[in-house]
Amino acid sequence: MNNIDEMSVNAIRVLSADAIQKAKSGHPGLPLGAAPAAYELWSRHMNHNPANPKWENRDRFILSGGHGSMLLYSLLHLFGYGNLSIDDIKNFRQLDSLTPGHPEYGHTVGIEATTGPLGQGMAMAVGMAMAEAHLSAVFNKEGYPVVDHYTYVLGGDGCMMEGISSECFSLAGTLGLNKLIVLYDSNNISIEGSTDIAFTEDVMKRFEAFGFQTIEVKDGNDLAAIGAAIEEAKADKERPSLIKIDTLIGFGCPAKQGKASAHGEPLGEENVAALKENIGWPCKGDFEVPQEVYDNYKKIAQERGAAEDKWNKLFDEYCEKFPEMKEKWDKYYNGYDLTDLFESEEYWVKPEKAEATRSTSGALLNLIKQHMPNLVGGSADLAPSNKTNMKDAGDFSKENYAGSNFHFGVREQAMTAITNGIALHGGLRPFAATFFVFSDYTKPMARLSSLMKLPVTYIFTHDSIGVGEDGPTHEPIEQLAAFRSLPNFTVFRPCDRTETAAAWMYAIKSESTPTGLVLTRQNLPQIEGSSKEALKGGYIIDNSTKAEPDAIIIASGSEVSLAIEAKKLLAGDGIDVRVVSMPSMELFEEQSDEYKNSVLPLSCRKRVAVEALSDFGWYRYVGLDGKVVSMKGFGASGPANELFKKFGFTAENVAAAVKDVM
Amino acid sequence: MNNIDEMSVNAIRVLSADAIQKAKSGHPGLPLGAAPAAYELWSRHMNHNPANPKWENRDRFILSGGHGSMLLYSLLHLFGYGNLSIDDIKNFRQLDSLTPGHPEYGHTVGIEATTGPLGQGMAMAVGMAMAEAHLSAVFNKEGYPVVDHYTYVLGGDGCMMEGISSECFSLAGTLGLNKLIVLYDSNNISIEGSTDIAFTEDVMKRFEAFGFQTIEVKDGNDLAAIGAAIEEAKADKERPSLIKIDTLIGFGCPAKQGKASAHGEPLGEENVAALKENIGWPCKGDFEVPQEVYDNYKKIAQERGAAEDKWNKLFDEYCEKFPEMKEKWDKYYNGYDLTDLFESEEYWVKPEKAEATRSTSGALLNLIKQHMPNLVGGSADLAPSNKTNMKDAGDFSKENYAGSNFHFGVREQAMTAITNGIALHGGLRPFAATFFVFSDYTKPMARLSSLMKLPVTYIFTHDSIGVGEDGPTHEPIEQLAAFRSLPNFTVFRPCDRTETAAAWMYAIKSESTPTGLVLTRQNLPQIEGSSKEALKGGYIIDNSTKAEPDAIIIASGSEVSLAIEAKKLLAGDGIDVRVVSMPSMELFEEQSDEYKNSVLPLSCRKRVAVEALSDFGWYRYVGLDGKVVSMKGFGASGPANELFKKFGFTAENVAAAVKDVM
Repeated sequence: MNNIDEMSVNAIRVLSADAIQKAKSGHPGLPLGAAPAAYELWSRHMNHNPANPKWENRDRFILSGGHGSMLLYSLLHLFGYGNLSIDDIKNFRQLDSLTPGHPEYGHTVGIEATTGPLGQGMAMAVGMAMAEAHLSAVFNKEGYPVVDHYTYVLGGDGCMMEGISSECFSLAGTLGLNKLIVLYDSNNISIEGSTDIAFTEDVMKRFEAFGFQTIEVKDGNDLAAIGAAIEEAKADKERPSLIKIDTLIGFGCPAKQGKASAHGEPLGEENVAALKENIGWPCKGDFEVPQEVYDNYKKIAQERGAAEDKWNKLFDEYCEKFPEMKEKWDKYYNGYDLTDLFESEEYWVKPEKAEATRSTSGALLNLIKQHMPNLVGGSADLAPSNKTNMKDAGDFSKENYAGSNFHFGVREQAMTAITNGIALHGGLRPFAATFFVFSDYTKPMARLSSLMKLPVTYIFTHDSIGVGEDGPTHEPIEQLAAFRSLPNFTVFRPCDRTETAAAWMYAIKSESTPTGLVLTRQNLPQIEGSSKEALKGGYIIDNSTKAEPDAIIIASGSEVSLAIEAKKLLAGDGIDVRVVSMPSMELFEEQSDEYKNSVLPLSCRKRVAVEALSDFGWYRYVGLDGKVVSMKGFGASGPANELFKKFGFTAENVAAAVKDVM
Repeated sequence: MNNIDEMSVNAIRVLSADAIQKAKSGHPGLPLGAAPAAYELWSRHMNHNPANPKWENRDRFILSGGHGSMLLYSLLHLFGYGNLSIDDIKNFRQLDSLTPGHPEYGHTVGIEATTGPLGQGMAMAVGMAMAEAHLSAVFNKEGYPVVDHYTYVLGGDGCMMEGISSECFSLAGTLGLNKLIVLYDSNNISIEGSTDIAFTEDVMKRFEAFGFQTIEVKDGNDLAAIGAAIEEAKADKERPSLIKIDTLIGFGCPAKQGKASAHGEPLGEENVAALKENIGWPCKGDFEVPQEVYDNYKKIAQERGAAEDKWNKLFDEYCEKFPEMKEKWDKYYNGYDLTDLFESEEYWVKPEKAEATRSTSGALLNLIKQHMPNLVGGSADLAPSNKTNMKDAGDFSKENYAGSNFHFGVREQAMTAITNGIALHGGLRPFAATFFVFSDYTKPMARLSSLMKLPVTYIFTHDSIGVGEDGPTHEPIEQLAAFRSLPNFTVFRPCDRTETAAAWMYAIKSESTPTGLVLTRQNLPQIEGSSKEALKGGYIIDNSTKAEPDAIIIASGSEVSLAIEAKKLLAGDGIDVRVVSMPSMELFEEQSDEYKNSVLPLSCRKRVAVEALSDFGWYRYVGLDGKVVSMKGFGASGPANELFKKFGFTAENVAAAVKDVM
């Protein structure tokens, strides 16, 4: 590499080492080792414009090894993204800085995705590549490739060990996502030592098995070789690519390079000095970068950014020539307005027949899709059961990227992270689906949906012992508690069609909160008192006669009708009961104290909650004097109606619980 | 295949079809397609004794595709395991039957593991193979291979799509587990249709990349070919083996074979009849099997079972020759008695110095290991951080199966299922470890620990915003709620060394409940009032002066010292506070009402709970009138002490909350 390139690469190393040293915390290994690859990619191959990080046709870059965040912050600073200043770099890992320990989407300009949990960035990249493929199929016209960009993701051995990487790359290979390029920082080191201890597989062969093109760069410091590999990767129009780059973790620091201790602790003052001397760094003080390096990056930023000008011209012509596509583009990227649909009678029709809420959901999904063409998504191989097939919307595949129905295979983790990636990309509104009991698999990725404030939709069906014969491995018990306790995630467990319609409306209108729709396998009756008040999370669905009820029964979903039956029984005993439907605790908690008190007056302590899952979390609403009719342990295998009886979900039992508290 | 073999294979098909049809529920595809492979394995290659399903040196068999349970039940019935009768078969999927929808360990004799969630059986098999390797290294002597058995696991495309399969097989290949044999029922069908939709990878090549021997059987009905493949697999002394068996899902049923609809719904009465006719089944009525078939299975059972007689002779000689090994064997398989240790002063020593509970845990783990040689386990690449390295206990590897320290790599899902597999195998007491925030990854497998009543130990460190600079992706918030709501799982969040010692004692003495130890990264002071009372889950750690306190503060772990500080502040205001430490809600709930009332008297409603994670679940103890000082959202990146302040975990704030409720 020539001198200015060498210094520009080393600027990344030096800033990273200094920042981590000052914070006395951080991971220097990846930044030091992968700096050349990142520099080569960002300066000579990636289409991006630091002056406009939101340019829709930019190439995407994800740092899947999120602990290597200083690599990314150094690049953002040097390239001039969002004016990330040297003070911001000095504030690495300090409270309220723009440079938190792991990159946070929405917090620091230029970060495409929050990463940290290894492997998730890889799958989010697959999602971004899927979004690009779909949008190109929808929008591009002959001579007007307005959607045409690559997705690059960089990660290490840790990401490759995580199962999610096999899930997402097996799918990526099947889908022929040729604009996905994976840079594998291969340094044979993980926290516990050499990867020989636990990870001797032939990674390149694994990727060949997935249908990737595989390229190896034997010297991770050789910019020309890295550049050639990237171009070779881009040239393959059929397959995604893996570029394995052999690096030395902590390169440049004599005492640390190649060792596990280079991974996740500051180098130490002496070692930082040794690093700078070893690589011939010209500056004396910490955080000092030669002006010529800044100038070089500025020049490069302008060169890379010119791609946007070129694209703007193309896009302007496209909009002139295809005004209807321009209109569609705006809707895709800014959102469809479904106000008319959500105010229509068709949407809120209250049928007579009992219906499983998963079936209602399927019908609503299809209705919404008609008004919202950019709704896309799928299930982890359970579409017929989840009722998530969108009719006449096509199946997304290598032959038909315009299809809206995604087939993820039995890969819940990848499905969820891909869904995040699609949302991050922009232009599409994605959903994911599986059995509620398998929501456990989606949880680490759903957590990132919440952290990143992505309004993605999760469809979780088969929500209780209503599962029946499949038995305890398939019957959710604690999954409601798991998602209700997750910040910025709204769980909605509707009791009938009306509440399901409210749930979908909430999910679609949400701007920054993911939603989990928890739906039944079995038929539920339509409840007379159900209404849009469900959007308040909890409301009176069947009121007491008196202003102050003798007792309150709170229920959600399949247990609401049970609560109403119990109320009738108790009326026979002269007990005047109010039934409250609480499809969403989170939405209820957002209401005013006044409203909450009107539904659940503090004066009334005789309360029973009933839900056919765990009682964990219900005591907030029944207090020290109330009771919860719930599952006390796991379910069982047998016909559903027998299970509900066996586990005490009968009107008699609920009525008895009310009498107990009185 | 000869006629009696053919009929014996078809008996499996017919019983499966009849049982599923009668239940009007179930999955016929796998049983029909994989019956030949299962029959060949169980009748001519597997060492097992239906008369003694607990024989320690039996080969293990796991049906990872647990939905195909009728395959397993048919085999168990025909081979005579546990007298599983024809009536039990007829009761398939009925409440309280011995043939629930998915196989349940501990419920039906002969089931080695509960399966259902795809892929987990694969990883449990790896765990069993690891256990076998370790125990052979510990016990075998020249000429006395007393531990010498194979682990077979059968699953399909779904299992292969799940990320956990790549995790566990990558590790298996690295470890050279040559006695692991994977039978891959390859029928190219999943629920949503042909696997072409989402799964076109070259599975054989993926396994080659992992270091497996790979063998293909092109005709899944060819018993001789299957048999030859199994023998070839067994002959490889260096590598685990994958046998890919090409089958037709739903084989034998003309209308259904090869179709997705053969997977998970009853064939239908007409199709069952067509199946029987198509395969030439001689019996007219449902559930009828010719006596010659029963006789054949009985003969085979005796032949296979003779292997145990042979082993008994060998084992008797071994015990005579090596009486100290016999003693050790009994301890390994029946359990070490640690009473002396748990009553010793050394174990309960109360130091002066503050210490992170993860460090205390590491010391106790090492102490326990000295008294319990069959304690084994490891971390998902975080052993130095989790403090789980057992000194001088060796590292388990291909070169040293006698090592007790397992290196799982960054593979939380596989680690957890492997840990279950090791526990299921018998002879070893395993633990697993990772960062508490990544417990999300372990959850689907920990759920099976609970379902199967396995007393495995989970070490979860870095349990709150005490994580500090790594930031919100690494700071647990909702993970306590997730595990507290899981039935038959005990969470223990100790506040100091004494409580950590109590936690470990509980975990080791547990017979049927998995334990999660939730430990700090940061130092915690030793609390004067802490004691073994912690085993009650909640106890008075710093009592009020008056018999009836003015207010009660409940806390766990790192917040106990904070609660005590707040109590001191409030004393200055004349408010007499009782501080309750509640390291384990589950254990508290097991106590008598009398005890619980003595700690948290219903008469005292002025209660504040404080925990540096989500408040979800605490209202059970503070009721409608109490408050919880907790995290309201995600954490942040910054030094830990600044985070605790920022998020309100100060004595002043807790005291203010108490005043609020008064």
